Amino acid sequence: MSVTIKDIAKLSGVGISTVSRVLNGSGFASPVTKQKVMAAVHELNYIPNNNARNLKRTQTKTIAVLVKSITNPFFQKMIHTIEQKTMLRGYCLELRNVNSNGQEMLIAQQEVMDKNLCGIILMGGGFEYTEEDFKHLGVPCVLLTVSADDKVNKDLYSSVIIDDEAENFKATDYLIKLGHKRIGCIYNAYGQLKTPNTLRFEGYKRALLENGIPFDPLLVSSFNTSQSGYEFGFNMMKNLMMRNKDMTAVVAMADIMAVGAAKAILSEGLRIPEDISVIGFDGIEVAEYYSPALDTISQPAEQMAVSAIDALFAMMQGEKTSHIVYEAVLLKRGSCIGLTNHS
Amino acid sequence: MSVTIKDIAKLSGVGISTVSRVLNGSGFASPVTKQKVMAAVHELNYIPNNNARNLKRTQTKTIAVLVKSITNPFFQKMIHTIEQKTMLRGYCLELRNVNSNGQEMLIAQQEVMDKNLCGIILMGGGFEYTEEDFKHLGVPCVLLTVSADDKVNKDLYSSVIIDDEAENFKATDYLIKLGHKRIGCIYNAYGQLKTPNTLRFEGYKRALLENGIPFDPLLVSSFNTSQSGYEFGFNMMKNLMMRNKDMTAVVAMADIMAVGAAKAILSEGLRIPEDISVIGFDGIEVAEYYSPALDTISQPAEQMAVSAIDALFAMMQGEKTSHIVYEAVLLKRGSCIGLTNHS
Repeated sequence: MSVTIKDIAKLSGVGISTVSRVLNGSGFASPVTKQKVMAAVHELNYIPNNNARNLKRTQTKTIAVLVKSITNPFFQKMIHTIEQKTMLRGYCLELRNVNSNGQEMLIAQQEVMDKNLCGIILMGGGFEYTEEDFKHLGVPCVLLTVSADDKVNKDLYSSVIIDDEAENFKATDYLIKLGHKRIGCIYNAYGQLKTPNTLRFEGYKRALLENGIPFDPLLVSSFNTSQSGYEFGFNMMKNLMMRNKDMTAVVAMADIMAVGAAKAILSEGLRIPEDISVIGFDGIEVAEYYSPALDTISQPAEQMAVSAIDALFAMMQGEKTSHIVYEAVLLKRGSCIGLTNHS
Repeated sequence: MSVTIKDIAKLSGVGISTVSRVLNGSGFASPVTKQKVMAAVHELNYIPNNNARNLKRTQTKTIAVLVKSITNPFFQKMIHTIEQKTMLRGYCLELRNVNSNGQEMLIAQQEVMDKNLCGIILMGGGFEYTEEDFKHLGVPCVLLTVSADDKVNKDLYSSVIIDDEAENFKATDYLIKLGHKRIGCIYNAYGQLKTPNTLRFEGYKRALLENGIPFDPLLVSSFNTSQSGYEFGFNMMKNLMMRNKDMTAVVAMADIMAVGAAKAILSEGLRIPEDISVIGFDGIEVAEYYSPALDTISQPAEQMAVSAIDALFAMMQGEKTSHIVYEAVLLKRGSCIGLTNHS
């Protein structure tokens, strides 16, 4: 027998109308009451009736974007596109930053309730979402740049991603084909989580493996950090250069890290690409304005943002979920050259 | 005789309780009703009783930051600090982007009503706020990086700024003292508005004047644009170089523009600082990671953000408004040298 709002009221010890107010985020409910109700919702695994709730919600017309690492300029570009498209459709956009240790799904659930959201887009973070996460959310949800575990029912959410593993295989393989064998790798490891960065690291290792180059942990600099990408890239590159005098190239798993790494190389009096080739990931503007301009794996940020917002509005109109994997592009701007041209 | 909620109800043709709901943002009111009430509020110049409203509002505990030009990394740094401090005090932060043509004060007034805000911080934009703006807002307001016109009663708002005119005088004067006379100037002119950029431009002109150097409009590149700072700086510098073969230095009124300008110089095969000296403004991270690292007027972003949030919470507790002008620092990183050292 399915759980109803009456069961929630009984378990949490408050009236049915109070439960309704809490679940719909309308009218007053004290923080303590909210907590009681939400505890009961979670305990009974209650799934709100979305149709009824969405009907009510059409009045507020607000959707939200939750972003982890909002300071990465790559996300800024996407947010701008999402904002434009949202306004063109007559909706408001709530922008919410989640710091790197934050529980984005819990925050999302709270936002949906507090703000009567019609739908939500989650950007950044990891690939760790569960079926329960989406059920508790209770409104259409699109994951952008990340996705859920393969085991999760794909009808519960939409996703717009690139194949991070394959794309960074591409970057590493490109350097190997240029003759490089001692290739440094810089990435941000978030504990044991599966993230875009850890997937890109898998691509780096597979490229080495398939080209018969032994993996050397000394060539890897990673750390679980909330430092900015620039500072992190700079420090990790300093480390790599100290440990590996024979390194001729480096793969950085975000352009902001590549900029920091480039600065570390230039500040040692070395040249790019004559002494060390550099490739980044993402395709942010500043990597192109850097001198030299940095090669990168460029994600189609604007297209991805448009697809995410399209998927969300489709779901809000009762259409099916969708799952899109975009292809990224290897941009050659001159910061990588063949090993035989190194001086 | 002061205007009361009864007068609003009478003029807008709705009940007193409806007016109360609209003004407090609690419960349901149709968009049409809201509009009627707000029209009456504006017409009668009604000033809500803040103490009563704030009492009610302590339950929601949300403050908001409205930002113009959210993509400028300079603002990102401040937002991060504001977010941390807000959470530490047990409040939620709403982050709202306003695009460069947006009417931030109207949006602020709407947000206050829709979201039961306890207070609001406005960043970016111009210096064009009026007394009515703050009265209609009805909650404590802090202006950060901008302020209101001098004629506006200073008890109505708090502000945290730098002296943009004096600081860019400092930058220009520094170049002049290094022997430069043909100094380019890049800034973003937003129509006829008074903004930090236009104030910095005044400082540039005064430095020339006080040093007996004639102002030459050919050395100025400005435009009312919503292009990103990097692209804008790059294009404006290309312009300046084409028109002025004798230019030996450039002042860019934001670091993102300075990065674009630096790229334009380097892409022409010229060197920094040997051929052209470059100085920016703001003190963002990427200007330091650029190669060469760029000189700048560095604003104390974190301190300014802390002061803004402190001022807001003070006002929310019934304390007086405050108006702080911080001093910025000229950071010499090697992108400007004496004219006699130019080659």
